[in-house]
Amino acid sequence: MNGEDQEFWDRVCQDLIEESQRAISPLIGSPEGGEIVKMGADGTPTTHIDLVAEKKVMEVLNGVDRPLILISEEIGEVNIGEGPPEAILVVDPLDGTSNAVKQIPAYGISVAVAPIPPGSNGSLTIEDIQMGVVKNYATDDIYKAFKGKGAFLNGEKVSPSAKQDLSSISMGAYVYRMDMSKIEVLCKSVRRMRILGAVAIEISYVANGTYEAFVDVRDNLRVVDVAAAKLIVEESGGVVTDSQGNTLNGKLNVLEKTSLIAACNTEIHDEIMKIWEGI
Amino acid sequence: MNGEDQEFWDRVCQDLIEESQRAISPLIGSPEGGEIVKMGADGTPTTHIDLVAEKKVMEVLNGVDRPLILISEEIGEVNIGEGPPEAILVVDPLDGTSNAVKQIPAYGISVAVAPIPPGSNGSLTIEDIQMGVVKNYATDDIYKAFKGKGAFLNGEKVSPSAKQDLSSISMGAYVYRMDMSKIEVLCKSVRRMRILGAVAIEISYVANGTYEAFVDVRDNLRVVDVAAAKLIVEESGGVVTDSQGNTLNGKLNVLEKTSLIAACNTEIHDEIMKIWEGI
Repeated sequence: MNGEDQEFWDRVCQDLIEESQRAISPLIGSPEGGEIVKMGADGTPTTHIDLVAEKKVMEVLNGVDRPLILISEEIGEVNIGEGPPEAILVVDPLDGTSNAVKQIPAYGISVAVAPIPPGSNGSLTIEDIQMGVVKNYATDDIYKAFKGKGAFLNGEKVSPSAKQDLSSISMGAYVYRMDMSKIEVLCKSVRRMRILGAVAIEISYVANGTYEAFVDVRDNLRVVDVAAAKLIVEESGGVVTDSQGNTLNGKLNVLEKTSLIAACNTEIHDEIMKIWEGI
Repeated sequence: MNGEDQEFWDRVCQDLIEESQRAISPLIGSPEGGEIVKMGADGTPTTHIDLVAEKKVMEVLNGVDRPLILISEEIGEVNIGEGPPEAILVVDPLDGTSNAVKQIPAYGISVAVAPIPPGSNGSLTIEDIQMGVVKNYATDDIYKAFKGKGAFLNGEKVSPSAKQDLSSISMGAYVYRMDMSKIEVLCKSVRRMRILGAVAIEISYVANGTYEAFVDVRDNLRVVDVAAAKLIVEESGGVVTDSQGNTLNGKLNVLEKTSLIAACNTEIHDEIMKIWEGI
């Protein structure tokens, strides 16, 4: 992305985040927000607050001057504006829906931008993401990254933890509703484990050393969940792969699922892979 | 506790919480706050921010008009004031130390008050707690309970979730650094699992339906961690036992350890016990 494009999409993301946060704020902590209203494009239930968030995203993007494709949890994929789309926006309008309804302070938005090269057929992968923004609405923390230009928390450049010893790390790890024996050694090897229930925020935590690692090996993460945070961690200097140790290369659509191992450095990543592969 | 005593100790708790929060706030998110400065009375490392929090607790309690015994994580047990102590205050000056240092938004204080009956030898148990307060400093939420008078969140009376179906519940569960096979069935049976890393706050979550259950069966919780939150859950109408299904009756000291299963109602508690005992 050139400077002008970056500035343009950065402003779009900023608007999107501010407007969405305003739209859902009356529903935070309200049982009404948690009512299930329909099934989403990805086959999971959509709550009232999810729908309010996504409607606002649609509304804001409908006002954008450039044609684009929106990929989002509930709505699937939709073209917005006239003419060949210039970018794909991969949005999770509400990361951590259940937390928002219950006022557990980890919920927000994830927006990733992949510019579409002129003449392309639009079939891009997660590797084509050039910009990612994740905001925790409960704390107002904003993680942001531009490809090749680093990662930022509230405007300050961040880098991951330098820890190399697994026994001293804090790890976000989604271990419920899976075969525990597969992850037991890992869960016994770390200092602290956390499950906050807001995946985009928790992956981003690796970028500034809040977590040393994030692990979800249930092959159940959607591209909308991870698209922005993956770039944020990589741009901070961290490592992100799937559970096989491969670069994530999922297509930008709402159905694609993946596993994810994010780590502060190759040493911690290697330690985790060794344990995981040793099962 | 009569009305006058309740009012007195409530005011002490309020001061304690406000002053402590003010004292530690400059250290939130600072690496300096996380530096290990000594080993606590309970054998775990004490960080700089823990010490600042506890010093402030001591300072506030030194100004209280009635003699008392303070039981606290780092300092152990200490008599404050002249004459026979009128109450034991069981305090965790900073629940979720690691979160406070990393700015994960779940950290705060836990204060429990057990009046000492005149002529008693002062050897009270967790069952003698008459008042409990837990505050999450990151969100300013205050859980409070008075024995026989209900539980409150920010002044509003609360009650637990009415859910009776394990597969629909949110459960806080500390499952790392333990034998996973013991908890695997339970972790596979629930809808959502959380580990925020602030035990007093998370136990209190059962009181107002944020969680349906909280489980830590590692026999590693200290009485200072759970004293206030246990009363808060029980006063809301929830159920609290150890991993054997027995009422908690640990002595009020800093070394006593326990397991804890808190649930929104007897149905969910029974389901959890059935799984746990079936191993």
